Amino acid sequence: MKSIGFIGLGNMGLPMVANLLKAGYRVHAYDVRREAVDLAAAQGAAPAASPAEAASRAEAVVTMVPNSPDVEVAYLGPKGVLDGARSGQVAIDMSTIDPATTRRVGARLEAAGVQMLDAPVSGGVPGAVAGTLTIMVGGDPAVFAQARPILGTMGKNVVHVGPLGSGEVAKICNNLLAGVSMIAAAEAFTIGLRAGVDPKILHEIIRTSSGNCWAIENNCPVPGLVPKSASNRDFTPGFMTDLMAKDLSLARAAARDLGVPCFTGALAHDLYMLASRHGLGRKDFSSVIQLLTASEGVATG
Amino acid sequence: MKSIGFIGLGNMGLPMVANLLKAGYRVHAYDVRREAVDLAAAQGAAPAASPAEAASRAEAVVTMVPNSPDVEVAYLGPKGVLDGARSGQVAIDMSTIDPATTRRVGARLEAAGVQMLDAPVSGGVPGAVAGTLTIMVGGDPAVFAQARPILGTMGKNVVHVGPLGSGEVAKICNNLLAGVSMIAAAEAFTIGLRAGVDPKILHEIIRTSSGNCWAIENNCPVPGLVPKSASNRDFTPGFMTDLMAKDLSLARAAARDLGVPCFTGALAHDLYMLASRHGLGRKDFSSVIQLLTASEGVATG
Amino acid sequence: MKSIGFIGLGNMGLPMVANLLKAGYRVHAYDVRREAVDLAAAQGAAPAASPAEAASRAEAVVTMVPNSPDVEVAYLGPKGVLDGARSGQVAIDMSTIDPATTRRVGARLEAAGVQMLDAPVSGGVPGAVAGTLTIMVGGDPAVFAQARPILGTMGKNVVHVGPLGSGEVAKICNNLLAGVSMIAAAEAFTIGLRAGVDPKILHEIIRTSSGNCWAIENNCPVPGLVPKSASNRDFTPGFMTDLMAKDLSLARAAARDLGVPCFTGALAHDLYMLASRHGLGRKDFSSVIQLLTASEGVATG
Amino acid sequence: MKSIGFIGLGNMGLPMVANLLKAGYRVHAYDVRREAVDLAAAQGAAPAASPAEAASRAEAVVTMVPNSPDVEVAYLGPKGVLDGARSGQVAIDMSTIDPATTRRVGARLEAAGVQMLDAPVSGGVPGAVAGTLTIMVGGDPAVFAQARPILGTMGKNVVHVGPLGSGEVAKICNNLLAGVSMIAAAEAFTIGLRAGVDPKILHEIIRTSSGNCWAIENNCPVPGLVPKSASNRDFTPGFMTDLMAKDLSLARAAARDLGVPCFTGALAHDLYMLASRHGLGRKDFSSVIQLLTASEGVATG
Repeated sequence: MKSIGFIGLGNMGLPMVANLLKAGYRVHAYDVRREAVDLAAAQGAAPAASPAEAASRAEAVVTMVPNSPDVEVAYLGPKGVLDGARSGQVAIDMSTIDPATTRRVGARLEAAGVQMLDAPVSGGVPGAVAGTLTIMVGGDPAVFAQARPILGTMGKNVVHVGPLGSGEVAKICNNLLAGVSMIAAAEAFTIGLRAGVDPKILHEIIRTSSGNCWAIENNCPVPGLVPKSASNRDFTPGFMTDLMAKDLSLARAAARDLGVPCFTGALAHDLYMLASRHGLGRKDFSSVIQLLTASEGVATG
Repeated sequence: MKSIGFIGLGNMGLPMVANLLKAGYRVHAYDVRREAVDLAAAQGAAPAASPAEAASRAEAVVTMVPNSPDVEVAYLGPKGVLDGARSGQVAIDMSTIDPATTRRVGARLEAAGVQMLDAPVSGGVPGAVAGTLTIMVGGDPAVFAQARPILGTMGKNVVHVGPLGSGEVAKICNNLLAGVSMIAAAEAFTIGLRAGVDPKILHEIIRTSSGNCWAIENNCPVPGLVPKSASNRDFTPGFMTDLMAKDLSLARAAARDLGVPCFTGALAHDLYMLASRHGLGRKDFSSVIQLLTASEGVATG
Repeated sequence: MKSIGFIGLGNMGLPMVANLLKAGYRVHAYDVRREAVDLAAAQGAAPAASPAEAASRAEAVVTMVPNSPDVEVAYLGPKGVLDGARSGQVAIDMSTIDPATTRRVGARLEAAGVQMLDAPVSGGVPGAVAGTLTIMVGGDPAVFAQARPILGTMGKNVVHVGPLGSGEVAKICNNLLAGVSMIAAAEAFTIGLRAGVDPKILHEIIRTSSGNCWAIENNCPVPGLVPKSASNRDFTPGFMTDLMAKDLSLARAAARDLGVPCFTGALAHDLYMLASRHGLGRKDFSSVIQLLTASEGVATG
Repeated sequence: MKSIGFIGLGNMGLPMVANLLKAGYRVHAYDVRREAVDLAAAQGAAPAASPAEAASRAEAVVTMVPNSPDVEVAYLGPKGVLDGARSGQVAIDMSTIDPATTRRVGARLEAAGVQMLDAPVSGGVPGAVAGTLTIMVGGDPAVFAQARPILGTMGKNVVHVGPLGSGEVAKICNNLLAGVSMIAAAEAFTIGLRAGVDPKILHEIIRTSSGNCWAIENNCPVPGLVPKSASNRDFTPGFMTDLMAKDLSLARAAARDLGVPCFTGALAHDLYMLASRHGLGRKDFSSVIQLLTASEGVATG
């Protein structure tokens, strides 16, 4: 499969297309925004007028759109992928969406002989540019094997998780943990700093104890403690508060659909939503510490 | 200082006394329970009839009691340390308590010429037996230097955090993070398992991504994934749910006293309290997953 | 409009059909369960083989099904209402569902010339039997005026709230408050009873003060204080925990879709879900006090 | 008993003293702020130089101070009530504090032959001025009978709740419910308004349904719906956010001491604390809606 229909040309999609082109794929690119299609064309992609057209001219389809309804429209809407697809094609949805939607769309595609993979990513825009995304893939192992080379041009760590929808589940479970522990880290440091403890010493204790987590090691909400933290650069993302809120919303919905509670995930979701209302939506999610302390600046480590 | 008055001879205190004796200290041991004093005496300690007596016969005092009121009674109550102490002595409280209580007791001791350190520990009974506790110390640096050899017989990693009370603050900040992220881990795995994802693959993805934390690496609430997890041995502690609830209660109280919110810590506190009411109080705190799933057994990795 | 297609013949739907028949309407009744159709037929309704058939034989359609996907299937699925409906008909959905689904289905119906009302109810099975439901209606005022007589046979208090979807919004806002304040009441009484306060006196103080709410006045989670409380009859519903969990789930989803936080609603949702996992799902929602106290019986007032 | 030692001359204490004077009591007034004593003297009270002096010159003592440590200092500190009291006196603490502190102080007083009542109030400054406070009293019934006339000059609704501490328990249980349901009301109206529902209709539906509560009937967070709401006057209190936060903190602490969870109370506590950090501390507690919506103004009903 050397020709790809690529739908969704945002901050993530465009560099992913660039990496496909660099690896020798022909790309038929579509986006609801005409100017995004022009940008892809300038990179060397062939413009497509609809998802159906992109699908009809390619061997495989890749979608990278903002959320669940966008995926439904791209595949099942008027002039959607389903209208242009042929039996035997592979459709790879790399959006982060509700796994229930994944399975619903997948069933419709399968009825038309198209096999679907869900393949959400982590690594953000830098990872998309560098082709070093982590890609979590759900779907049939044989289909995964077919799609592996395509995914390998966009990501470094490509993991087959399980059946269709599993990629989405893995991503939202991970981000649930990341989102909750960031807030716990912010609370812990807020207590420690206000109690007068030296943040460097506190950080070192937590980092080597049972409180350690990714936020402590890689993206500490208090500046001056970990080199690459967003807090060192006024919370320039990194991973935006609004995206974390979205992923936690998916975690909550998944928990509800499975009939299990998700206490800390739900609380974290509401706190990131509140942070967004208070102007932090497009900052790194570690900026939630500013909501809690209600201050512009936080004491430096 | 080669003689120690040691007050509080529980599961932690007794092996700590044993290590002091092994290192050549004379120990005057007291506990409210006479049988605990007998156990210490059998190890080679000299029994004392009161904290005052233990303090009066020793150069330094160590306390290791359950909670804040116990510390107040041990130091300031009738026949307490203050009644037997002499100017120039050092008092080391190794209990995990409210830092406000630490400072209040410390001020009373200082008025009598006794200098206090707070030195709460992590590492549990195994660490106390092996003499490998992590000890977080608050107080005057010169007093810390004096007490360093004593602490070194009981712990491996002895850290001076800052002024009096800082040791307590550091410990409760760490345990706030540990307690919250354990619940988030339990929620994430509950979602993942019920959605049919292979726990081994899910664990590996989270461990190498932004969801990683101490619980994932060292004490996973799902059995079969991490060798030393309490979940592998029916949640035998480890660190008991009731103790985690207690430490989170201290974190909440500290946050309140400092005028800052502690959303995830408060929620985790209530969930561990509820777990305790549902029979999990004396199991490892990772057993909180059983409260969430309301099942005796959890799918094995 | 004297003939009604009625879809959804559960505990609520069957007595609603009985009241329509009693008022002289002809009813064409459908349910996915054949035995439910037989029960309606025994009451005097004409059995229908599909929603389409029920719609095609009637002037107006009423639906009363469990949740959002059921509404989508009943209206838009194969042999759904849309397949049998004619321009000029009125469709009244009395289910409690996501207002976003209401508006989506309504748009599809409108394109076919069918005008929709959402008309969720409160009052439970007793209200359905007695024809005394409260009915909260969203949709065009002229359509509301047309449907008013039909609704009046099923409910006593029929309120026009606003445009399509408003009825659902009003219901879930009300139940958000009802669900949260019930838990707060349970917490308050749990504290009071354990602190040794006489529940009758505590109840009287709260009832006449700022803590008063519907739960205190009408459905107190502690038995012996309010005559009609479910707690007096071992938490026989009344309004089931599982239904409250469902309505709070709709409130959370509505808040998320509107970009606003819903902290207490989300927490209450998870607590009712947890209560359900612990065996209280089909008891009255006031039984959540048993989750909190982890006891079978609660001290009597 | 016609002479009263009155300690604590704040916004509440001064009008309470005025009512005692008006009823013919002699009042020996003390406050840590000299200027407050001057204000009481200007009303006709005799200034006292310490709680001990106030107690020594009076038959009964009344205290009305901000929080638990203040009560401890007023009674047990240097020149405290205990230093000036005589056996047979009655001490009435009208502060809102931790019932555990009440019982601790009460035990010390009882050892000196002084009998204590706890008698926290609701009704705020207007109630204190008008002498129409609700007073919830804990303590021995015979002592209550003795103190009844004194309390009757300050309050209209004087209730004997139970043994010492019960008054505090009743008040914090009531305020737990009031504080939580206010937030739920704010969430419900935020959803309803953003969904475009007319607030007057929404208010009327909730007021007559299971979502009704004191906030809905008396102090609606949305302006224009209930005449006496603080929201109608830019959230001028009424009852301040900071005071609600304090009372919820007492509820949490009481729950913790009793070993029961207090989920919604804890969440509400943190939300009012966060509201305070965001500048709403001295506004009416219904202003918490501004934290949730992150806006200065809320749509008017």
